[in-house]
Amino acid sequence: MAFQYNRLDKDDVALLMVDHQSGLLSLVRDFSPDDFKNNVLALADIAKFFDIPTILTTSFEDGPNGPMVPELKETFPDAPYFPRPGQINCWDNEDFVKAVKATGKKQLLIAGVVTDVCVTFPALSALEEGYEVFVVTDASGTFNPVTRDTAWRRMEQGGAQLMNWFAVGCELHRDWRNDIEGFGGILAKHLPHYANLMQSFTAQKG
Amino acid sequence: MAFQYNRLDKDDVALLMVDHQSGLLSLVRDFSPDDFKNNVLALADIAKFFDIPTILTTSFEDGPNGPMVPELKETFPDAPYFPRPGQINCWDNEDFVKAVKATGKKQLLIAGVVTDVCVTFPALSALEEGYEVFVVTDASGTFNPVTRDTAWRRMEQGGAQLMNWFAVGCELHRDWRNDIEGFGGILAKHLPHYANLMQSFTAQKG
Amino acid sequence: MAFQYNRLDKDDVALLMVDHQSGLLSLVRDFSPDDFKNNVLALADIAKFFDIPTILTTSFEDGPNGPMVPELKETFPDAPYFPRPGQINCWDNEDFVKAVKATGKKQLLIAGVVTDVCVTFPALSALEEGYEVFVVTDASGTFNPVTRDTAWRRMEQGGAQLMNWFAVGCELHRDWRNDIEGFGGILAKHLPHYANLMQSFTAQKG
Amino acid sequence: MAFQYNRLDKDDVALLMVDHQSGLLSLVRDFSPDDFKNNVLALADIAKFFDIPTILTTSFEDGPNGPMVPELKETFPDAPYFPRPGQINCWDNEDFVKAVKATGKKQLLIAGVVTDVCVTFPALSALEEGYEVFVVTDASGTFNPVTRDTAWRRMEQGGAQLMNWFAVGCELHRDWRNDIEGFGGILAKHLPHYANLMQSFTAQKG
Amino acid sequence: MAFQYNRLDKDDVALLMVDHQSGLLSLVRDFSPDDFKNNVLALADIAKFFDIPTILTTSFEDGPNGPMVPELKETFPDAPYFPRPGQINCWDNEDFVKAVKATGKKQLLIAGVVTDVCVTFPALSALEEGYEVFVVTDASGTFNPVTRDTAWRRMEQGGAQLMNWFAVGCELHRDWRNDIEGFGGILAKHLPHYANLMQSFTAQKG
Amino acid sequence: MAFQYNRLDKDDVALLMVDHQSGLLSLVRDFSPDDFKNNVLALADIAKFFDIPTILTTSFEDGPNGPMVPELKETFPDAPYFPRPGQINCWDNEDFVKAVKATGKKQLLIAGVVTDVCVTFPALSALEEGYEVFVVTDASGTFNPVTRDTAWRRMEQGGAQLMNWFAVGCELHRDWRNDIEGFGGILAKHLPHYANLMQSFTAQKG
Amino acid sequence: MAFQYNRLDKDDVALLMVDHQSGLLSLVRDFSPDDFKNNVLALADIAKFFDIPTILTTSFEDGPNGPMVPELKETFPDAPYFPRPGQINCWDNEDFVKAVKATGKKQLLIAGVVTDVCVTFPALSALEEGYEVFVVTDASGTFNPVTRDTAWRRMEQGGAQLMNWFAVGCELHRDWRNDIEGFGGILAKHLPHYANLMQSFTAQKG
Amino acid sequence: MAFQYNRLDKDDVALLMVDHQSGLLSLVRDFSPDDFKNNVLALADIAKFFDIPTILTTSFEDGPNGPMVPELKETFPDAPYFPRPGQINCWDNEDFVKAVKATGKKQLLIAGVVTDVCVTFPALSALEEGYEVFVVTDASGTFNPVTRDTAWRRMEQGGAQLMNWFAVGCELHRDWRNDIEGFGGILAKHLPHYANLMQSFTAQKG
Repeated sequence: MAFQYNRLDKDDVALLMVDHQSGLLSLVRDFSPDDFKNNVLALADIAKFFDIPTILTTSFEDGPNGPMVPELKETFPDAPYFPRPGQINCWDNEDFVKAVKATGKKQLLIAGVVTDVCVTFPALSALEEGYEVFVVTDASGTFNPVTRDTAWRRMEQGGAQLMNWFAVGCELHRDWRNDIEGFGGILAKHLPHYANLMQSFTAQKG
Repeated sequence: MAFQYNRLDKDDVALLMVDHQSGLLSLVRDFSPDDFKNNVLALADIAKFFDIPTILTTSFEDGPNGPMVPELKETFPDAPYFPRPGQINCWDNEDFVKAVKATGKKQLLIAGVVTDVCVTFPALSALEEGYEVFVVTDASGTFNPVTRDTAWRRMEQGGAQLMNWFAVGCELHRDWRNDIEGFGGILAKHLPHYANLMQSFTAQKG
Repeated sequence: MAFQYNRLDKDDVALLMVDHQSGLLSLVRDFSPDDFKNNVLALADIAKFFDIPTILTTSFEDGPNGPMVPELKETFPDAPYFPRPGQINCWDNEDFVKAVKATGKKQLLIAGVVTDVCVTFPALSALEEGYEVFVVTDASGTFNPVTRDTAWRRMEQGGAQLMNWFAVGCELHRDWRNDIEGFGGILAKHLPHYANLMQSFTAQKG
Repeated sequence: MAFQYNRLDKDDVALLMVDHQSGLLSLVRDFSPDDFKNNVLALADIAKFFDIPTILTTSFEDGPNGPMVPELKETFPDAPYFPRPGQINCWDNEDFVKAVKATGKKQLLIAGVVTDVCVTFPALSALEEGYEVFVVTDASGTFNPVTRDTAWRRMEQGGAQLMNWFAVGCELHRDWRNDIEGFGGILAKHLPHYANLMQSFTAQKG
Repeated sequence: MAFQYNRLDKDDVALLMVDHQSGLLSLVRDFSPDDFKNNVLALADIAKFFDIPTILTTSFEDGPNGPMVPELKETFPDAPYFPRPGQINCWDNEDFVKAVKATGKKQLLIAGVVTDVCVTFPALSALEEGYEVFVVTDASGTFNPVTRDTAWRRMEQGGAQLMNWFAVGCELHRDWRNDIEGFGGILAKHLPHYANLMQSFTAQKG
Repeated sequence: MAFQYNRLDKDDVALLMVDHQSGLLSLVRDFSPDDFKNNVLALADIAKFFDIPTILTTSFEDGPNGPMVPELKETFPDAPYFPRPGQINCWDNEDFVKAVKATGKKQLLIAGVVTDVCVTFPALSALEEGYEVFVVTDASGTFNPVTRDTAWRRMEQGGAQLMNWFAVGCELHRDWRNDIEGFGGILAKHLPHYANLMQSFTAQKG
Repeated sequence: MAFQYNRLDKDDVALLMVDHQSGLLSLVRDFSPDDFKNNVLALADIAKFFDIPTILTTSFEDGPNGPMVPELKETFPDAPYFPRPGQINCWDNEDFVKAVKATGKKQLLIAGVVTDVCVTFPALSALEEGYEVFVVTDASGTFNPVTRDTAWRRMEQGGAQLMNWFAVGCELHRDWRNDIEGFGGILAKHLPHYANLMQSFTAQKG
Repeated sequence: MAFQYNRLDKDDVALLMVDHQSGLLSLVRDFSPDDFKNNVLALADIAKFFDIPTILTTSFEDGPNGPMVPELKETFPDAPYFPRPGQINCWDNEDFVKAVKATGKKQLLIAGVVTDVCVTFPALSALEEGYEVFVVTDASGTFNPVTRDTAWRRMEQGGAQLMNWFAVGCELHRDWRNDIEGFGGILAKHLPHYANLMQSFTAQKG
């Protein structure tokens, strides 16, 4: 049976940002704080750039888990937003699932904190419902690399595709000519070493 | 063929704690001693909290392998307990398997020392008998990361799902509202950084 | 169903070298610069030694990504060469795909920079078209090991075989007697520790 | 000039616990959370066991830094306690220094969070005043190993001795016969692998 | 379809030791020299203990690759031994394959140097011929962890089971009572930390 | 002889930013790109906050080394700026040294790229001239950790003090009450995990 | 003042082997078990080869710490042996110190378990008494690398020289011609990769 | 007392290349083979470029240690060359020391294999004789990082300065204008990432 390349399609994908809350973020130790912050915001900028329907959710945000990071709220001021009253798997929240279905998309990008719970659970639930699931590995964080590896394997076993934010952006963009300035601007902002290349290039161009 | 999410169900799961003995524990070097002790006891506390049928077993406990760690005996004073006379794979011990079957559960959580033998062998045996097997990766330890990785891959190949103790607890709990205090207490005890969040929260709440 | 060993066949394989450009190479941080340069040039020498049809391509080479490294151009002066005007996935470039098909080969070796985009995208596209795809892991580089691992898993999930350059060379060569001097020369040049063995051997032989 | 071994003397030493607060602890990433919690509490238990004058201090505990961890307050209910109104270096707080001097001790054990500031600054200040300073390296934490190494070198350059909590306990105890049960109890509680040895021993002794 | 646990059966398994030669061993850098030597000899001792048919082979042993390590020759003085004249994949050597088939076994344990070539190639060939293949991961070595990981994944993809030498020994032995002294002796010789447990036990037993 | 704590004094210190150029930055591989960019800009923000005289210099900025990163120029628009025509050690540039002396400060903070050359050389030159030298370890980068360690040791041997940017800020600030908002703002911007603490705190405060 | 190279002198050095006991060895986690066992026995073989006075001591060998490893007793059957009744620092045991002084040597090689206590304490005591102290870093082990580094720095600060077993052997031997076979035999036994070189050499010599 | 910057002076320095032999090189495992080969040859090219008197020596080159690597002989065809008949410390070879003294230089650069013996011993001997010693850390290799660190500390304690090959080149060159092409050519050859910068620059310059 032939393999089918389920390629990200900017017209058929939605993004789920799960539990990027100030308290929970302090638990993330499989990335440096600078790297992780950059990865999460890069993914958000990509979603906004491609105008991808985005759904936000939090868990117990009035308790120690804390509020969603303000940058996400600012990037997606009009996104559906579900502060869950108790469900750990956001897919157990009916309103959230309704919002996902309302997007009418077949592909789901999922990122969250912590990877082994807030990402893995909805990823497996969505796979069961027939969605194509793409987990953004470097915009999802957890306690340590052993836990991360455990979670990745479970999602992979269920059929999820693993992608990093840069690959997500490139697979959505497809062709630089679609908007060189716009996409290049995101890279310059979130890939410091790519920004260096651009700066050298510009300087030498004169 | 559609993927099916075999989700942990607290009413249909049993826990097997295999060979957490004082001598064998000294062989575990893929986790720090503090981390590993914490992981094992966290899993035990979770099983007790959800009242999950638990079965204990040891290998040659009168020899160098040493006795089962006292904390497990204390947590599960009434659990079936099988000091095996010689079988390395606990699934080769008829009494043990009878006890497993007597639980009437379809899902098995397995943790043990060492991962590549005391966990992998019964995991594969149980898979062969049709159980859904969930290996608790961070409550299982072995000689070094290369050995651990070897063992994880073999179990994964057989269809076992890999999970860490925190994900086990969350997938069983499903909704914080089921018992916030109880479940939060386990997290406070076994996730020092989560305890810090709770303490800051409480202090500020005043 | 029996497993079939899709073994590299020097008469049925082509090599795709994707985006090894001076600017993009500065982004590679999952290998040391010395190691990575050596790996890329070793793969090139192998392809040349076995006279494997090789196709070169670059992305936006007039911008910050920079020109293809000169050693590749020198090794393959007559190879089809496609500076892509914008397509990120080189398989989206019709001329490139035509050139691949024109080789008439069933097997494709792919290496490139960065692994998660410039290698993964064409690898999945080629798999979809029925090619046997062999990704050369150590002649492909990216931002960090987490990203590399993410990309490897996605390609593996699609059915790509992962191989390092040394294994590629050996699987193509099959028998030392086919050309001891020639193949040994490549190893001496690109495996410093193997060169040491040869030098000790020669010295002692007298 | 002969070297003089400035050995810890339980009758001439005081302990300073600096800024082990719930918020600041979440910044510590050069130890796993389990390891670090254990190290800090082990040091506290040692100080209590040897009845060493202990002084506690916090920085801005009503703000994001959070309250001192409750276990320290419980271990040292009557210890002088200085919530500093603003001084970053606790040695800039006159009351704190007065309390240190009031102990009449010549040797100071210092541990704190974060190593490069809350430990390094008072360590250097105390060295300047002629104290013998012993930094407890594994009960002090900071952002990452590069920062830790930077801080260690600066303190070492100033003449501070670096010690881990286990060495502190042993150098204070000097002879097991002084109180085998008491000291062994601390080790059993804070060195899980030593507890395993004791358990095997006891079991075999029968 | 039910999973079948292809368990090592001491009456239906043969061991292939491929290219453990003095020159090639110097290329192994994914294990420390002490660890790797110990792993290889442990596997050899296990095969001898269970009287498993063992086949030895070398590649170009008169050249820089050097002779097979003497300990293997001593352990298996009567084993079929094939110094290959040129074939890189030992499965391309007809005499070698005849010897394998002559054992009449269905299961093959394979270890060798280097993992990505001398182990991977025959492993895939044997899988294609319908053998159950068990790769002994820690008695096989190569240039670095990236290469090792690449090779493991390719063999896993083909259906090989990955096992470490300790797991091999335990799965073959099945029950300590079959020969406590004999099997324990192997562990004491090759697991220094297990030897320590035995020594403490014996000393305390008196 | 008593130790003297040469404490950073905001009224007696100047900052030297050496060769943070777009080309040279691509050589830095002992920090992740995100971490390093953050560290350099944090140091710059601290210098600006405390109004510390800052001197900028570059090496061959019209060649492959590239221009100084724009953020530094923007932060210090009026700072003395010395594009060196050829001197590798900026202390060999008379104009640069004159500018340093013109600050009238006794203490020098130095950060640069690469650590082993652009930082080490002027650090040793300044020490020879009697300056108190403070190397900012995490705002200085080089090829790999081995090179970094080599450079640190050489500077330490010469008497330089090693500090990270956070410790620099805290030692200059001395007391939170001097300007809580201002200093806290720098931390919030450059320590994502501290920003999380502040956000949780604010949210809970209501 | 001129530096003086305090070179190991086989006629003026004694070896102290401190607390290499079966229980304590299980606490060593800064070396792999195989590596550490090899390092300790290599040092013992060197001492025996050069006929260096060796003194053995243990701590509480009737308790959980366990007996001295049998290989050391076998290598040094007639060495002074001091099972200490309670002193943690063996230099606090008068009989032990008398035995050290009775050797009449000025240089002391010290190795032991754990590095931060059983090695560091007597090393500092011996330095205070004017001995030249050489700590054998790789035949001394402890809980983890952070603890090891802490201990090394403290001993270095006191003036101890750090050496690995191989350097000890070479500095004592000085000239291969003193006994090629004998010294080469030790290397062949304890440096597997050097043994490989010797084997290749011998094979090629014919 | 003022610190004096003992800066490398191309007119007052000699280079000692100690035991870079084909057999011994196979023991080096604290650098990847590609990195180490590059580092050694880079140092050689630098010495040749600055016309620095260089002295070569080997240990037992007719035995398993093997011949000096051919590239060094080719780079320094007329350099004094001392195959030592047995002395492990090359400073114990009178002819070698005479040759060193005959250079009339006060500064010595030393690199060799293995770091802890072939570099450390002559470094300490030369320091004792009053030379300024500069150890080239990345052109010297040994068994593992623990051994390397041990050796570095011992040499540092004796007063040696540690430098990497790039810093050596830059400190000798002092000013790019002395020979941009020549020095740049060495960097392009031995720093692949710097070569990339040059290539991008040249391409953009047009």
